[in-house]
Amino acid sequence: MANLPRIAITMGDPAGVGPELCLRLLRDERVQAVSDPVIVGDRGVLNRVAQHLGWPRPDPARIVDLQAIPAEAVEPGRVAAVCGKAAYIYVTHAITEACAGRVDAICTGPINKESLHAAGIPFPGHTEILAELTKAKRSCMMLTSETITCSLVTVHVGYAAVPGLLSRERIRDTIELTADALQRLRGRKPRLLVCGLNPHAGEHGLFGDREEERLIAPAIADARAQGIEVDGPLPPDTAFLPKHRRATDAYVCMYHDQGLIPLKALAFEEAVNVTLGLPIVRTSVDHGTAFDIAWQGVADGSSFVRAVELASRLAAGGYRSTGFGLQVGG
Amino acid sequence: MANLPRIAITMGDPAGVGPELCLRLLRDERVQAVSDPVIVGDRGVLNRVAQHLGWPRPDPARIVDLQAIPAEAVEPGRVAAVCGKAAYIYVTHAITEACAGRVDAICTGPINKESLHAAGIPFPGHTEILAELTKAKRSCMMLTSETITCSLVTVHVGYAAVPGLLSRERIRDTIELTADALQRLRGRKPRLLVCGLNPHAGEHGLFGDREEERLIAPAIADARAQGIEVDGPLPPDTAFLPKHRRATDAYVCMYHDQGLIPLKALAFEEAVNVTLGLPIVRTSVDHGTAFDIAWQGVADGSSFVRAVELASRLAAGGYRSTGFGLQVGG
Repeated sequence: MANLPRIAITMGDPAGVGPELCLRLLRDERVQAVSDPVIVGDRGVLNRVAQHLGWPRPDPARIVDLQAIPAEAVEPGRVAAVCGKAAYIYVTHAITEACAGRVDAICTGPINKESLHAAGIPFPGHTEILAELTKAKRSCMMLTSETITCSLVTVHVGYAAVPGLLSRERIRDTIELTADALQRLRGRKPRLLVCGLNPHAGEHGLFGDREEERLIAPAIADARAQGIEVDGPLPPDTAFLPKHRRATDAYVCMYHDQGLIPLKALAFEEAVNVTLGLPIVRTSVDHGTAFDIAWQGVADGSSFVRAVELASRLAAGGYRSTGFGLQVGG
Repeated sequence: MANLPRIAITMGDPAGVGPELCLRLLRDERVQAVSDPVIVGDRGVLNRVAQHLGWPRPDPARIVDLQAIPAEAVEPGRVAAVCGKAAYIYVTHAITEACAGRVDAICTGPINKESLHAAGIPFPGHTEILAELTKAKRSCMMLTSETITCSLVTVHVGYAAVPGLLSRERIRDTIELTADALQRLRGRKPRLLVCGLNPHAGEHGLFGDREEERLIAPAIADARAQGIEVDGPLPPDTAFLPKHRRATDAYVCMYHDQGLIPLKALAFEEAVNVTLGLPIVRTSVDHGTAFDIAWQGVADGSSFVRAVELASRLAAGGYRSTGFGLQVGG
């Protein structure tokens, strides 16, 4: 596997489905075909889960054993500060390794926001941890699948906080980062579509605070001036009609559920989460810790496999966003 | 057609696709099979559109000619106060006829919110006109299709205005009205699913202002206490996964795009719009005036046909919501 990209796969919350999915990943032929994988986590936890499920123990050479939590301290399916802290230790280690160039990409397993919070970690999710630790000037979360791809201008904030977080710059950044990533993934100039914030995209000021005219349209104009093919703002409800989906490589959405509702309705749990704008390559599973089925060996690992595959593709393509402007084809 | 429900079909904005769709409806065998239709609009406009398209003139006996606008004053595809006013005259007439029992239901053609606004009419849409003119104590908009059905707690308001409009009572009313309507449509007790407001349904207070705990969960508890089968609040993005759709007769959504994004992504433009809680039966097309293709004869009339069919079914079933409590089976 010497020539394959080395991918640091974080184990995620020890009490969730992360450990069992990591055990599966190491034995998955699709993963082996495209990457040189290593699990960043706790060997004791992985061994305990393997034993619990009657699965073979993982190859120790494929584990970075951080000993962040004793295996017997993990209660499957429970929110716990110790698990939140362990998950945080795994991801910070993986980020450090990637920033130092010792791995080519990271692919993160599911963490639990409540456990993180219980551990006093002041980040709502991976995207924010990554932005902070890599000192990215700008970044955004994109979810991509065969069916539909959506980037989010705002992510893990309450519904009411969204309008105050939107700015022309932030929307333009999201458009630019998305265009850059799609150019690399598709190997051609992508076509983007930007959603409005309000119903009917505000219907020319009838609803909302003219966010479409004040912020979104100017950001689209900025991006067009840089040669990006981008349309909008479109009424959010009609934006995802099949006729628009066929003509769109990626959507730029103003808030979490504007993008994730259609993405999950259409692509189910097949999407992969990518953080754009970082100096490192990072992908993630699209689902959570699934505490209700943790350690039962029944969790569907296909999103995680696709996340590793995408990380490998991006790493092999030399994807490193500078976070400034477009590095299309670079 | 003496025994079929008499349906008043409003022509909608004269400058939109409403007139040509009305001409089609009158000749549609599916419409004739289930209803005794009458177009409430302007005969001059209908004749002008028919002539323009080379279609036969409509049967005058099937038109209530309100002479609200001279045919030659209509500019197809243009926002105009005169057209907004005419559309308003049609719908108010139809409401009056229905309230008086002279028609069994109304089915409304597409109106243009900007034209209404230009005419100084202080309603953002049909739902609000109907609520006001029928003096309904409570009402809500529901969109229904074979694939998915969504009711909306808030409708035509800006994004930022939604949280301030949510209340336990309003959410409970929407749940009750939806359960009532689905019981009648399905002939059995329906299963409803209520979405949260915030990403991840607030993740136990991590995002948002605990709207899920303060408002939505109590409203669900109220509805359950009345025997309604209703679950939630669910994270909005996972609520529309296939596994949930299969187990759900109707979704109760907090805002316009939360319901309409998945509805249009999954059911395209096949849904029918029903106003629940009124003393009259009212359905509507799911699409707008489509000014870009108005008077070209190419607009898809299937949503309008389905809207007439649903109005006929509801009218034939004696649907009259009292607006208070459940009248299931009544």
